Amino acid sequence: MEMAGARDGGPRVGLVPTMGALHAGHRRLIDVARAECDVVVVSIFVNPAQFDREDDLLKYPRTLESDIQLCASSGVDVVFTPPTGEMYPAPLNCTIDVGRIADHLCGSHRPGHFRGVATVVMKLLQIAQPDRAYFGQKDAQQLAVIRHLVSDLNVPVEIVGVPTVREADGLAISSRNQRMGPEERRAAPVLYEALEVARQQITSGVTSVAQIREAATGIIEQRPGVKLEYLEIVDPGEMHPVEHVEHPVIAAGAIWVGSTRLIDNLLCAPPPVAPDLTGKGGS
Amino acid sequence: MEMAGARDGGPRVGLVPTMGALHAGHRRLIDVARAECDVVVVSIFVNPAQFDREDDLLKYPRTLESDIQLCASSGVDVVFTPPTGEMYPAPLNCTIDVGRIADHLCGSHRPGHFRGVATVVMKLLQIAQPDRAYFGQKDAQQLAVIRHLVSDLNVPVEIVGVPTVREADGLAISSRNQRMGPEERRAAPVLYEALEVARQQITSGVTSVAQIREAATGIIEQRPGVKLEYLEIVDPGEMHPVEHVEHPVIAAGAIWVGSTRLIDNLLCAPPPVAPDLTGKGGS
Repeated sequence: MEMAGARDGGPRVGLVPTMGALHAGHRRLIDVARAECDVVVVSIFVNPAQFDREDDLLKYPRTLESDIQLCASSGVDVVFTPPTGEMYPAPLNCTIDVGRIADHLCGSHRPGHFRGVATVVMKLLQIAQPDRAYFGQKDAQQLAVIRHLVSDLNVPVEIVGVPTVREADGLAISSRNQRMGPEERRAAPVLYEALEVARQQITSGVTSVAQIREAATGIIEQRPGVKLEYLEIVDPGEMHPVEHVEHPVIAAGAIWVGSTRLIDNLLCAPPPVAPDLTGKGGS
Repeated sequence: MEMAGARDGGPRVGLVPTMGALHAGHRRLIDVARAECDVVVVSIFVNPAQFDREDDLLKYPRTLESDIQLCASSGVDVVFTPPTGEMYPAPLNCTIDVGRIADHLCGSHRPGHFRGVATVVMKLLQIAQPDRAYFGQKDAQQLAVIRHLVSDLNVPVEIVGVPTVREADGLAISSRNQRMGPEERRAAPVLYEALEVARQQITSGVTSVAQIREAATGIIEQRPGVKLEYLEIVDPGEMHPVEHVEHPVIAAGAIWVGSTRLIDNLLCAPPPVAPDLTGKGGS
C-alpha cells in the first residue's frame, strides 16, 4: 500500500499549520521543520470554525504580507492560504468529534473550539499529505487533541510538538499579546509565574493538587486587572485533572488580561522516587 | 505537495471495504475495482462501532476462509483483516460526527451507526491510502455519508458507488439474507416490489410524496410476517425527505422479516418536464 512523500522515497514534507500573524513562536516551528524536512509548507488560514466568539474572530490579527515575508526569509517552500470558501464551500456534514479530551481546560471554556481545530487540521493534513506536522507546545490541549486525532484515525503523519518560545519575562509568545496595552503587558507574565510556582511545588515533592493549585492561583488572584479562567494539573495524555501528582503532569492555565485571553502551560515532573532499600517494599 | 498511489505515478490502488461474509454484491465491487485499478485491496473487518445492537454484532456471519477464497479467485492483491484490538487499541477520543445526513432513514433508527461507519472508513482510507474506494449502492445513505466524509475532510480518494446486485426475484443481495428461513425468504422481495411501485409512480409523473408513500407502503403492510421500519423519498445528496418530487430522488426502505432487518433503495427520476411552447412561461 503506497503512502505519500518520504514513504514513497519522495521528498519529506513538513507542514506548519498556522492562523497567520506569524511571530517568533511560528518561526521556531518553521526552523524545526526546515531542519527536518525537504519541503516546508506553511498554511495560513484563520479558521472560523474554531472561534467560539464572533468578536474574537473579527479581532484576530491578519498580517498576510509580513507573514509571507517571514516565510520567504525562513526558507519556506510553499505558503498555502486558502480562501474560506474553498475550505468551507458549504456547511460541513462531517466533522471531528474530539470526545472526552475536550472535557477540561480550554475545551470546557470554549464550546466547539477543539471540534473546529481538529476538523481543520484533518482537512489540512489530507490536502498537504505531510510526513510531519509541527505544533507549538503552548497549546498543550490542542497538541494532545491532534495526537489523538492522527492516532485514532490512523493518519500517516508524525506530529511534532515544539517547545514554547517566551519573552525575557516569561510571557509565552502569542499573536494575542499585541492586543494588550502597556499596563496589561506588564501584568501578563503572571500566568507564567503562577505555573512556575506550581512546577516548583511539584519538583520539590508536593503531591496534593489542592495545595499546588492554591499556591499557584494565589499569585494570579493578587494581581489587579487579571482574571483567572482556569488553572489545572492534568495528565499529559488525556488532559484530565489529577488529584495527586505521581507522574509527570501538565500545569495549564488561562487568564484574562483586560479583554485579552492568554493561555500557557508547563510540563512538571515530580522528584524521582527514592529506591526502597529496606527490602520490605511491595511491587 | 505529494499524494499517494497513482497521484505519484505509482500503481492505482482500489480499496473495497467489507465486513466479510462476501457474496455476489461484494464480488461485483471487486470486479469493478479490478477493472479500474492496478492493485485491489479488500478489507474484512466486522466493525463493532457500527452495530447499534449487541445481538446483531454477535449474529453477524463470519466466513473468513471462503472470503479469502473468493478474494483469491477474483484477483484481489491484498486482503486486510485487522484484529479488533489493532483497529481499536483503546476507546477512541476522536470519531467522525456525520451531522445532519444521518437525521433520517437508517440514521434515525440505528443511533451511532453512521458515526461508526464513517470512523472506520476514515481509518481504512488512511491506512490503505487508495486512489479509489468502492461501495455498494444498496447502502445508499452509507454511500452518501462517505461521499460527504471525503469531500468535507478533503480525503484524496475517489468514491465509486456500484449498482446493487439482486436475486432473480429482485431481493437485494445481502449477507443478512442467509439468516432467513424459506418462508421469510419468500416474503423478503416485498421491499423491492414496494420500491418499484414508488419508482413507477414517480416515473409516471406523480409528484406527491404522500401519495407515493401510501401506494408503496400498502404493499408491505399487506404482507404477513413483514414489518415496515421506514419507507422514505429523499434527495440523493443530503438524504433528507422531500414532499414533492421535482428532481431525481431515492426511494429507500427498511423492513423486518422475522428477526432479519433488510434495506433497499431505488433511484427514481421524474419524467422530463415538457418544454413550455406558449412563450408565457417564467424563468
